[in-house]
Amino acid sequence: MRAPSLNRRHLVGAGAAWLAGCATPAQQTPLLPLRSADFLAADWRAAQRLMAAASDDNTAWRLVQALCTQVGARPAGSSADARAVSWALSALQGLGLANGRAEALPMKAWVRGPASAVLLGPQPQDPMHHLVMAALGNSVAAPAAGIEADVAWYPTLQALQDDRSDRARGRIVFIDQKTQRTRDGRGYGLAVVARLNGAVEAARRGALAVGIRSIGTDSERIAHTGAMRYRVDVPAIPAFAVSVPDAELMATRQAQGQTLRLRLKLQAHSGVDATTHNVIAELPGSDLAHEIVLIGAHLDSWDLGLGAIDDGAGVAIVSAAAGLMQRLGLQPRRTVRVVLFGNEENGFDGARAYGDRYGTVPHQWVGESDFGAGRVWQMNCRVQPDALPLVQRMARLLSPLGVAWATDRLNQGSPGPDAGVLMRRHKWPAVQLSQDGTNYFDVHHTVHDTLDRIDPATLPQNVACWAVTAWLAAQSPVSFGPVVV
Amino acid sequence: MRAPSLNRRHLVGAGAAWLAGCATPAQQTPLLPLRSADFLAADWRAAQRLMAAASDDNTAWRLVQALCTQVGARPAGSSADARAVSWALSALQGLGLANGRAEALPMKAWVRGPASAVLLGPQPQDPMHHLVMAALGNSVAAPAAGIEADVAWYPTLQALQDDRSDRARGRIVFIDQKTQRTRDGRGYGLAVVARLNGAVEAARRGALAVGIRSIGTDSERIAHTGAMRYRVDVPAIPAFAVSVPDAELMATRQAQGQTLRLRLKLQAHSGVDATTHNVIAELPGSDLAHEIVLIGAHLDSWDLGLGAIDDGAGVAIVSAAAGLMQRLGLQPRRTVRVVLFGNEENGFDGARAYGDRYGTVPHQWVGESDFGAGRVWQMNCRVQPDALPLVQRMARLLSPLGVAWATDRLNQGSPGPDAGVLMRRHKWPAVQLSQDGTNYFDVHHTVHDTLDRIDPATLPQNVACWAVTAWLAAQSPVSFGPVVV
Repeated sequence: MRAPSLNRRHLVGAGAAWLAGCATPAQQTPLLPLRSADFLAADWRAAQRLMAAASDDNTAWRLVQALCTQVGARPAGSSADARAVSWALSALQGLGLANGRAEALPMKAWVRGPASAVLLGPQPQDPMHHLVMAALGNSVAAPAAGIEADVAWYPTLQALQDDRSDRARGRIVFIDQKTQRTRDGRGYGLAVVARLNGAVEAARRGALAVGIRSIGTDSERIAHTGAMRYRVDVPAIPAFAVSVPDAELMATRQAQGQTLRLRLKLQAHSGVDATTHNVIAELPGSDLAHEIVLIGAHLDSWDLGLGAIDDGAGVAIVSAAAGLMQRLGLQPRRTVRVVLFGNEENGFDGARAYGDRYGTVPHQWVGESDFGAGRVWQMNCRVQPDALPLVQRMARLLSPLGVAWATDRLNQGSPGPDAGVLMRRHKWPAVQLSQDGTNYFDVHHTVHDTLDRIDPATLPQNVACWAVTAWLAAQSPVSFGPVVV
Repeated sequence: MRAPSLNRRHLVGAGAAWLAGCATPAQQTPLLPLRSADFLAADWRAAQRLMAAASDDNTAWRLVQALCTQVGARPAGSSADARAVSWALSALQGLGLANGRAEALPMKAWVRGPASAVLLGPQPQDPMHHLVMAALGNSVAAPAAGIEADVAWYPTLQALQDDRSDRARGRIVFIDQKTQRTRDGRGYGLAVVARLNGAVEAARRGALAVGIRSIGTDSERIAHTGAMRYRVDVPAIPAFAVSVPDAELMATRQAQGQTLRLRLKLQAHSGVDATTHNVIAELPGSDLAHEIVLIGAHLDSWDLGLGAIDDGAGVAIVSAAAGLMQRLGLQPRRTVRVVLFGNEENGFDGARAYGDRYGTVPHQWVGESDFGAGRVWQMNCRVQPDALPLVQRMARLLSPLGVAWATDRLNQGSPGPDAGVLMRRHKWPAVQLSQDGTNYFDVHHTVHDTLDRIDPATLPQNVACWAVTAWLAAQSPVSFGPVVV
């Protein structure tokens, strides 16, 4: 049986205004014909209908707008998080999805308090400049009186790691690690280690606190928060990030040979008993209902912004994708499950709780939309080799939307943070739909993560990608696992 | 006697790289020949030398960089202000200027304390969203326990003024006044009244506090501070500005019919006894040394940023202009006086003290650079009618730099805030060199007023304009006053 051919012109006919804004597809080769072990023609046609229907579906925008304006910031375990859970449950039910539930899970919350960092002037007691800063997630508090000390300045985390002297002892270490702008986020991946491990490296050398240049690609006076971690064998010292222009000022003064001295105040509470939830809803399967196609996002956000791009957009995209299948009356073979994870940002509690509960349930694959609201530009996966041609066929179907098939690290895809935890732990197959993250780290984990940073026009393309791939994964004639992780 | 002709090509020869970036001059007509009552040819040639020499003079950039990195924010009356005074005195002396002095003046300082505003959620006690906000200058503190109240939302100050109901009573008034982007700042002029008078209008209607949309043209999560005022016959209530995206969020929720409720905390100290200074240095005149050509800027800044564009740039420009005359060995007839005013931002104490001290000294004109670091695009003035052709001739000389002669409100120029106070009070003539302020109100009075907001390439054109006009004003064969103000 052969699926009808699908070419670019065909699709333009179905959604011309929408496609006009898409990038040129990286691969222009004609779609491979379906073979006997492939998707059924009816399933293929349904995938085409999903693509076309997504083009004028504004559900995702409506969802993220509601989440941001009716709930706002929702750090895990907070009362806002609880409101987000209620909102999400009702939103998923409103889309007609079944089996809606919020699965409670205990967690230890980290609660931000007031914080400030003042750069002192040439006279030791002179407040010279109030830095724009934010405590890093999990940071311990500073002593109530604050910490005042000279700065031991390092251009990179590596420079700190290489330092065998006692220059950091009794000082506030500052790590001026820069973040490169990249489409795929690898610049962030390289830089974020300074945020994660800076405190441990500094404390090992006797530092009183650690500050870092924000892990971000902007040049605004906004601080980028984010999780950091301690080790039980190293003293826990306060950790904070300053805005890029403030880091630049410090670097200039450092280069001028001026002494940098900081007065730090930082309040925070760690280990606060709290509860969060995974919010789940489904499009129930038929003959393979016990197998799960998981499309996820995380419901929690950092506290500084509204959690629009991180990860209101993802919540909206995967919810709308499942909602679209429901609206078109599609019944999948496998169960398509939307999972909105709790506490991705600061501990992956939701992912771990999900794994604890569903680890023995077969998952066709897991995927997560958690990279903002940019267009999907590449598809990758992690499936058993026999299934790879089927997944490649999905990517070819998405090619008119500007989606390329992965060339680098093919079939070693990474499905997002929570889904990645599950993939590694349970050896579940995975799908990776890579969004354009060129501007993502301008606003990630900052006060700028607000609704106006989302271009509503980019959301339907994301919805199409998630709906089509989830649908075809659910209909696949073969299992995507087992995989080697 | 005729001055040598000066055309565009001539000047390009003198400073090609610099002029390449200039806008097309608005007037391409040839320069008027000098007549007998005009500038001496030697003075005219010196003006041309100043223009050419400014093109590769980086003094202004060096000065503003030093002020921002060595002093930083310098709210009037603070210890940083005192350091700025020392820095400025030594910088002006370093340029070879004479009679350097810092003239102390007593003032009442306003000192910012911690402040926060939380938008409460659907449940009255639910913190929904932390607004990015800043107290307005002069705001009284809120009661220590804070203020929690519903919001009475108004789209504009006019809407509040038109309200005859008691809707504002017992509430926090919010004024969503928008600021239009314009080159000449008139959008700001229209909107800023909401900042200045909002508290009085709200308190007259029984409000507990007043919040405003930041008077700014950006869409970043930064609050724009700035002075506001009370009336003795109206209760003083706390006043603050929120960022534009936060105002947008409130507007969206207001449009959705949701109740807006705020929890405001705001600490501040008013009327703190303090001292600031006018910093003055001169290029002493010869036969007319007792007449003053005043080129000014203000040394103080708001506390949130580094005071780079407001008004480090102006400090650097007028200082460098006088320094350039000195470097070229020019001796003016009248005394060219650089005045760096104290406390422009929150009371004009420096301008008033200057007027008290020098009000009886004849001033050829007064001018102030206080509109950022954009290029000068227009020249205007306020001089006695007989002197107008001479000033117009200056503008024609600057025409290759993209400077037009004023068409609107000709000879009704406004010379900047401090100089404007002096012009009105002492009927002194005035010069207005209008900078392009298209982007000025994106960062004005915010944390974003940092060094990276200045394009070093725009400074030499400003220096040329100030040096040329101050020089020719000092050499003028006629007095520019008296004027009608």
